Amino acid sequence: MSRARTLKVYVGPQQAPELIDAVKGAGGQVCETSEAAEAIVWWGGSPQEYDSLHHDGIRWVQLPSAGVEGWFAAGVLRPGTTYTSAAGSYAETVAEHALALMLAGVRQLHTAARERSWSQPTVGALFDSTVGIVGCGGIGQALVRLLKPFRARVLAVTRSGFPVPGASRTARPDELDSVLMASDIVVLGAPATPQTHHLIGARELALMRPHTWLVNIARGSLVDTDALVEALEKGTIGGAALDVTDPEPLPDDHPLWTQPRALITPHSANPQRLMMRRLAERVAENVNRYLHGEELLGLIDLERGY
Amino acid sequence: MSRARTLKVYVGPQQAPELIDAVKGAGGQVCETSEAAEAIVWWGGSPQEYDSLHHDGIRWVQLPSAGVEGWFAAGVLRPGTTYTSAAGSYAETVAEHALALMLAGVRQLHTAARERSWSQPTVGALFDSTVGIVGCGGIGQALVRLLKPFRARVLAVTRSGFPVPGASRTARPDELDSVLMASDIVVLGAPATPQTHHLIGARELALMRPHTWLVNIARGSLVDTDALVEALEKGTIGGAALDVTDPEPLPDDHPLWTQPRALITPHSANPQRLMMRRLAERVAENVNRYLHGEELLGLIDLERGY
Repeated sequence: MSRARTLKVYVGPQQAPELIDAVKGAGGQVCETSEAAEAIVWWGGSPQEYDSLHHDGIRWVQLPSAGVEGWFAAGVLRPGTTYTSAAGSYAETVAEHALALMLAGVRQLHTAARERSWSQPTVGALFDSTVGIVGCGGIGQALVRLLKPFRARVLAVTRSGFPVPGASRTARPDELDSVLMASDIVVLGAPATPQTHHLIGARELALMRPHTWLVNIARGSLVDTDALVEALEKGTIGGAALDVTDPEPLPDDHPLWTQPRALITPHSANPQRLMMRRLAERVAENVNRYLHGEELLGLIDLERGY
Repeated sequence: MSRARTLKVYVGPQQAPELIDAVKGAGGQVCETSEAAEAIVWWGGSPQEYDSLHHDGIRWVQLPSAGVEGWFAAGVLRPGTTYTSAAGSYAETVAEHALALMLAGVRQLHTAARERSWSQPTVGALFDSTVGIVGCGGIGQALVRLLKPFRARVLAVTRSGFPVPGASRTARPDELDSVLMASDIVVLGAPATPQTHHLIGARELALMRPHTWLVNIARGSLVDTDALVEALEKGTIGGAALDVTDPEPLPDDHPLWTQPRALITPHSANPQRLMMRRLAERVAENVNRYLHGEELLGLIDLERGY
């Protein structure tokens, strides 16, 4: 990308003073409306609203979320425009939630929270265990760092199979089965794409061991929910801790709410209070990079789908 | 301690094949009864039972737990005998549970586990937070290592005030107030002694901030339970996650069971399945040290009380 002397940025459509400050602080100019802008920092509107604001002068759009499957589904991303997601920005925050869910499962905290009497639970440990991380991008790699003091053996699965730093082994998607069979905990961190839809179905759940927990902090569509409910009812896996579900939000009458082996958090891994601070950092970094002609962070590949 | 050529050890009174193997593996001889023994590896009996088995030939007694206040209370520890606890052996296991409770509190997992509907919780983060560790021995120091990737600022409180590795600051007990005021999470890791009885009472709880969580993985007696219940009811602290309680076990009708800001685990931080492995390692190490005339691990100081 060539060096730009100035950058006119529209921030919106909802108000986001932290993002405006981030743009200005990095040397960008903020426009009141999108008409005169060359770039958009999107906050708070739908893909359809974006579509109605887009014009040929828009060269770069910064999207606010890490997962952007909704933007692909809406069909509003244009080949001639540069799009960036917030992928990686929330990695530590979400990895922390993943670790919280993993420990809650292993230490049976979901059960403890529901007890009204002193009991004798069968409790396991994360120390020295084997953790499969399926989709090991920014979140997965942040999780690897959190797991280091636990001496966990990390089996990463990535699209490329290129070695993940800190992982004992990095496998390709066609080696998923062996990772599921070897793991004490399986964490899903892959983006939602047609390739990852129902990545974990009845067949994959059957490969997991009776004590193994499934933790999903990525997207609900990665798991076949009906198959998961059945595995939990039959007790063929240890449990499931899900920050994302399919459908989402999970309806009030859904069996997962009362499933003793399940712990549901309402897509709260990346709380908005923390999110804004991280997004502002990313926006400042990318505006700065744009002005210096450097490659932007979180570049979306329209072919790959994330 | 002078080098011993042999060591006759009684392991009991309950059966513990792992501990017998540990003694033998380290070069000790196992006696069927305590009469001919010079050392005892205690497993599964009361202090009173120990008292009835003790004789003048017993030079060393290895106790199975990290906390030994019950042995002091029973008045059975003799000045002429060397006693060792398992202090430090279970440090990683218990520190893992402490981290699980901390994350559960910060991430509101206790609430999530009780929900039957999608909600919008106010969730915090452990990353970049301030953690007070009151009593920072083996468990506390293991916790410091687990907290390192979270960039947590650790404020340790120790009897000596001697700097704890990895802590931002180590305070003496008379500086406890400032630690309580500055911490986002307060973890109790001190032994139960007359000095630590009700270390956290109404006054100390009042110093803590409205979002601060209290985590107790040490002993129930460190906390004034009635004062804690009141603080939780009034919402003057964020919550409490307790693996140990006073009274313990917590009676079925106790208000902590239904307190929305509380999470109780039934003294399950160091599950017996994991405990035996660690204790066997400690027994082997100490038998080996005894035979080589080296200082034993977990030496109990009869004056200090732990």
